[in-house]
Amino acid sequence: MSSNGKNGKKGSIRSGVAVVSGPDGSSTNGLLRVGVVGYGYWGPNIVRNLHALDGVRVVRVCDKCPKALQRLKKTYPSVSVTEDVHELLTATDIDAIAIVTPVRTHHGLARAALENGKHVFVEKPFTSTTAQAEELIELAERKNLTLMVDHTFLFTGAVRKIRQLMEEGVLGDLYYYDSTRVNLGLFQHDVNVIWDLAPHDLSIMDYLIQGRAEAVVATGASHLNGFEDVAFITVYFPRNVIAHINVNWLSPVKVRTTLIGGEKKMLVWNDLEADEKIKVYDKGVEVTNQQGIYNLLVSYRSGDMWAPQIECTEALEVELDYFVDCVTRQKKPVNDGEAGLRVVRMLEAANQSLLQKGACLKL
Amino acid sequence: MSSNGKNGKKGSIRSGVAVVSGPDGSSTNGLLRVGVVGYGYWGPNIVRNLHALDGVRVVRVCDKCPKALQRLKKTYPSVSVTEDVHELLTATDIDAIAIVTPVRTHHGLARAALENGKHVFVEKPFTSTTAQAEELIELAERKNLTLMVDHTFLFTGAVRKIRQLMEEGVLGDLYYYDSTRVNLGLFQHDVNVIWDLAPHDLSIMDYLIQGRAEAVVATGASHLNGFEDVAFITVYFPRNVIAHINVNWLSPVKVRTTLIGGEKKMLVWNDLEADEKIKVYDKGVEVTNQQGIYNLLVSYRSGDMWAPQIECTEALEVELDYFVDCVTRQKKPVNDGEAGLRVVRMLEAANQSLLQKGACLKL
Amino acid sequence: MSSNGKNGKKGSIRSGVAVVSGPDGSSTNGLLRVGVVGYGYWGPNIVRNLHALDGVRVVRVCDKCPKALQRLKKTYPSVSVTEDVHELLTATDIDAIAIVTPVRTHHGLARAALENGKHVFVEKPFTSTTAQAEELIELAERKNLTLMVDHTFLFTGAVRKIRQLMEEGVLGDLYYYDSTRVNLGLFQHDVNVIWDLAPHDLSIMDYLIQGRAEAVVATGASHLNGFEDVAFITVYFPRNVIAHINVNWLSPVKVRTTLIGGEKKMLVWNDLEADEKIKVYDKGVEVTNQQGIYNLLVSYRSGDMWAPQIECTEALEVELDYFVDCVTRQKKPVNDGEAGLRVVRMLEAANQSLLQKGACLKL
Amino acid sequence: MSSNGKNGKKGSIRSGVAVVSGPDGSSTNGLLRVGVVGYGYWGPNIVRNLHALDGVRVVRVCDKCPKALQRLKKTYPSVSVTEDVHELLTATDIDAIAIVTPVRTHHGLARAALENGKHVFVEKPFTSTTAQAEELIELAERKNLTLMVDHTFLFTGAVRKIRQLMEEGVLGDLYYYDSTRVNLGLFQHDVNVIWDLAPHDLSIMDYLIQGRAEAVVATGASHLNGFEDVAFITVYFPRNVIAHINVNWLSPVKVRTTLIGGEKKMLVWNDLEADEKIKVYDKGVEVTNQQGIYNLLVSYRSGDMWAPQIECTEALEVELDYFVDCVTRQKKPVNDGEAGLRVVRMLEAANQSLLQKGACLKL
Repeated sequence: MSSNGKNGKKGSIRSGVAVVSGPDGSSTNGLLRVGVVGYGYWGPNIVRNLHALDGVRVVRVCDKCPKALQRLKKTYPSVSVTEDVHELLTATDIDAIAIVTPVRTHHGLARAALENGKHVFVEKPFTSTTAQAEELIELAERKNLTLMVDHTFLFTGAVRKIRQLMEEGVLGDLYYYDSTRVNLGLFQHDVNVIWDLAPHDLSIMDYLIQGRAEAVVATGASHLNGFEDVAFITVYFPRNVIAHINVNWLSPVKVRTTLIGGEKKMLVWNDLEADEKIKVYDKGVEVTNQQGIYNLLVSYRSGDMWAPQIECTEALEVELDYFVDCVTRQKKPVNDGEAGLRVVRMLEAANQSLLQKGACLKL
Repeated sequence: MSSNGKNGKKGSIRSGVAVVSGPDGSSTNGLLRVGVVGYGYWGPNIVRNLHALDGVRVVRVCDKCPKALQRLKKTYPSVSVTEDVHELLTATDIDAIAIVTPVRTHHGLARAALENGKHVFVEKPFTSTTAQAEELIELAERKNLTLMVDHTFLFTGAVRKIRQLMEEGVLGDLYYYDSTRVNLGLFQHDVNVIWDLAPHDLSIMDYLIQGRAEAVVATGASHLNGFEDVAFITVYFPRNVIAHINVNWLSPVKVRTTLIGGEKKMLVWNDLEADEKIKVYDKGVEVTNQQGIYNLLVSYRSGDMWAPQIECTEALEVELDYFVDCVTRQKKPVNDGEAGLRVVRMLEAANQSLLQKGACLKL
Repeated sequence: MSSNGKNGKKGSIRSGVAVVSGPDGSSTNGLLRVGVVGYGYWGPNIVRNLHALDGVRVVRVCDKCPKALQRLKKTYPSVSVTEDVHELLTATDIDAIAIVTPVRTHHGLARAALENGKHVFVEKPFTSTTAQAEELIELAERKNLTLMVDHTFLFTGAVRKIRQLMEEGVLGDLYYYDSTRVNLGLFQHDVNVIWDLAPHDLSIMDYLIQGRAEAVVATGASHLNGFEDVAFITVYFPRNVIAHINVNWLSPVKVRTTLIGGEKKMLVWNDLEADEKIKVYDKGVEVTNQQGIYNLLVSYRSGDMWAPQIECTEALEVELDYFVDCVTRQKKPVNDGEAGLRVVRMLEAANQSLLQKGACLKL
Repeated sequence: MSSNGKNGKKGSIRSGVAVVSGPDGSSTNGLLRVGVVGYGYWGPNIVRNLHALDGVRVVRVCDKCPKALQRLKKTYPSVSVTEDVHELLTATDIDAIAIVTPVRTHHGLARAALENGKHVFVEKPFTSTTAQAEELIELAERKNLTLMVDHTFLFTGAVRKIRQLMEEGVLGDLYYYDSTRVNLGLFQHDVNVIWDLAPHDLSIMDYLIQGRAEAVVATGASHLNGFEDVAFITVYFPRNVIAHINVNWLSPVKVRTTLIGGEKKMLVWNDLEADEKIKVYDKGVEVTNQQGIYNLLVSYRSGDMWAPQIECTEALEVELDYFVDCVTRQKKPVNDGEAGLRVVRMLEAANQSLLQKGACLKL
């Protein structure tokens, strides 16, 4: 389906000027008219960034909570509000809908939006099941509409720099990807720590690592409300690449550190560092002689470290600009429904593996 | 067998003055006469610490490499040397033997030493298989000889402080133990990264966590010499306690960090910190209302942090002093053959699980 | 003049509910009506916090730059704007004026405001000269108006916690205060790095240290635009207390670290730490025997470290609430004109000392 | 006198193979025969490194304390010992003497050694007064003997790398050198914190900065035993280069950090970092327009950071090897008596400035 997914080499993000036309080609005066569903924790960031973009008009925002709409009105008096999601989904003055609601509602809202001819930008994780994801992908394709999943991290300066380093071959063949994403809370009411925190790493891995994930093993435990609050996920990729994610809602300290080991160089990405988020180490190991294991000689290389400067544009701004661009030019996004589906598939497998205490599940 | 192992509450380390008598009760002029096998990487530390202890005389050191023995002679002219291990194992002027050789040789050397009536101090991991460990335990018991496995970390100020905090109930019920032990190299010639690095964490977990490990899941990958260089191990304990170990020979940075989460307090142990190795956080999560998951209220507690002062005596000195004490007073060591066996059992299971890509193996 | 200044023990900040009456006692419907001069770098923070306070109405904002006023209008449509500062200074519907302009304009604007019967909240540093400061203090006193200098740092959780620890005697007698405040830029157009960065530390020292500064020594150098970009200031206090400030516009890294050494305990305040801004060390030195210097015995104490939790309310919010409270209840602020004058006196002396390459200037 | 000292460009350290001849040209069988005075805190390091060098024989060690000599004997049975310093100073089988005693004894011992025709390696600070230093320099020159002051830090990988970066012009013109060297204790019995800790920085500055120090300003305070325990030193160099040293015996944390700012690049040297001691920042400031100060435009540059690998040979080993080389080839050491004198001159001036509360003293 997606050209971007067949060859194990996923597309790159390019941003450009949006020359907008309506989803049906009708004139929209060069403006993409967007409606937003959900103005809770993340919604205000979506609205703020859409609002600031040239070529976009935030037409209407919907939330079930009147207080949220009052807050919005105070900041954006010109945006209309509604508590009725159907009004938004069927509005004729809206070209695209951003869905910023809990995951269990994504499938229903996205399907209605697509059926009403709207482009869709939907929060991660894409859907609650792979079946739901597949249905939405098929529907968007049939209707020729853009479907983008909010894998925000792909648009950070850090991930874009890592991707660039990997594409340029700086790291050499990849050995492993090892991420720790732990902090105290926030506990979710309806999903475990895997569905809450792992989508970030799964989408990043999916974007950075060549080839598709092959199998998943997960372990974890639940201590408070019946949902796992600690979990460890291993994802096997082709060519002996192994990925690991450590997620935890019960850590006294916040950690956001990823080690990426390659044949030529190794990298540490600490997302909590203000200035030196990525450090590239000229370190490595080489087996120089292999005549029987007891004669095996390992030589170590230890050289300079280098912290490239990272662009600090807000990731969501870059991503929403890219959404407008994809809609306008009818481009397939890198973070399309297929990418969302791949992440949901890994989440589903991780959850099942965890229930089976670490069973290895093929993808 | 060991009283220390039945009730899920393992014994404490106490150090005292050694009033020495020979293993057979014969007079040794109040001195424990020790022979050491192996003077490679770790052996010099064993010899140096034994040498400095009152109540101990290092009688003879054996190594296959003449250069190693020359190095020893230069530093300790009074210690006799030999390349013939049998001479050492059968010497009549030796009461105890320290085995500081690769793991594949432990069983043979320890058995010969015990059969010759010597007490044994043996490097970790104890043996290559559980069967070997069980045989040695039985032999030592039958011969009424002390058998101690060098789980050095149990004798560090940090681990003793953590044990004390846990025994005093400061952390409350334990939730998880999560250790990261990664660095660049050193590659071993005959074991993988699990057998090389995980014994530290497994012995610490075994010492700190109440109850015995119930099951193990491990994943990993090998990139260079056929032995796994990256591995992730989950160990399930009773009462929902989950432990995890991340070991890696291919990390550009050295990390030695353990998170320990409890009901009342949480702890970070960073063994690379010079001064504040242990930080205790007055942080926690409480579920305050559980009428259906959507009404579930989670309250967070965030208070002071506290870094207790840690004793900085060299762990190996404390441990060898304890070895002398155990021999002299015929005490069961906390790090006896049983403890060594428990660690070997987890290593064996982790290795098998890894080969089966994460199968959950009962212990 | 100020009761708060005679006895070497400066007042504490207490926050309370504001029952507002007009400066002339006239009815203002319980609202303090504020005008703000200056909407550049810091002005928006003042307006945002005033706007959010109960008991305050931001009536009008003045700036010479029409673009700044447009930005304001977009966010606060209800606030009126003007480019004419005299209109604001003489407005009859304004009770208090916040002056958020470059230091060289403070004296003129504050004098006009006071003469027109307005309470004044003025940016730090208070004025360009001590003479200007003294004139404003006298004028405010005569007119019975509140005059507050924006020493924001006094209202941070960190400084309030340090003050509390010092008042409770936790640190014991003070030995030294040593602050490093360095970063890359921002270069000011009309003052040097001392006038730009040192007011923070000088106001904090003035607040924390008992007794008044007695003398100042400063050194520094200028490399780019004729104003010093690197400077080092020593301030002598009574009872052998020494304070030092290192300010630098040319540092590749940002540092905001203060060491405070006391007889009983010592403290490190790192304002760039997210969670553990203040660490209190149970460390110390005691001279235990002083029979001639060669027999002098020094004993060191090294105990636990403790990081108290710090309140994280925005300092400016607390300060502006306190301003309203001082106006309403006619209270003398801790950061009154006298406090501003003391800081200006130290700045003036530091500048003169620097020109004389480190001459020690009495205060 | 020293060619190395006239042109403001001090010599580089080069190490080479030592082809040894006696100080008087007599045959010594290719061995430099060394006597060591003082086996307290630093002496064992001197002996250990001399002992390990090819081309050197440690003939005799002198200490007033019999226990120290017993310790030495245990480790080096072949070295002879004496409590009588005159025996050592006049021994005919000794070519060079290492003086590792308190500073007040340096002058007397070094003079006696030189008068007896011995080369001298002497601890820093060189002497207690500049007059003493000048006398020793003159004497060594007259006797054609090598005189080296133990400025160990010049031989660390870090300082050699910084020197290399500066010589290659990587930093551009130097702006400032700012060092913090603080910790808890050790209090000295007969000198203040300046004489104890500042010689390190003064010798490094002297080595790195082109041109000679011109003036010194120092402030400080004493809290415990009559000697200053906190001090701040500013040193003025030609071309507007300013250096600053913060030394403190009463800091709860150990800090060893130096900022070096140049026109093109800036550098942070953190000597407590295990792996990334030196970080070079591609950051800078440029004044791009200077038509009156209010139109002055400052542009900032912020690029990559880079941590070059640092050689980790023990500095003292490199230095003592260099000492042997200088003796053998009759080379003028970079850290000769002149270098030692320059440091003593700055120490003397700093002490006097401190007593005069920051008077600026010309050098």
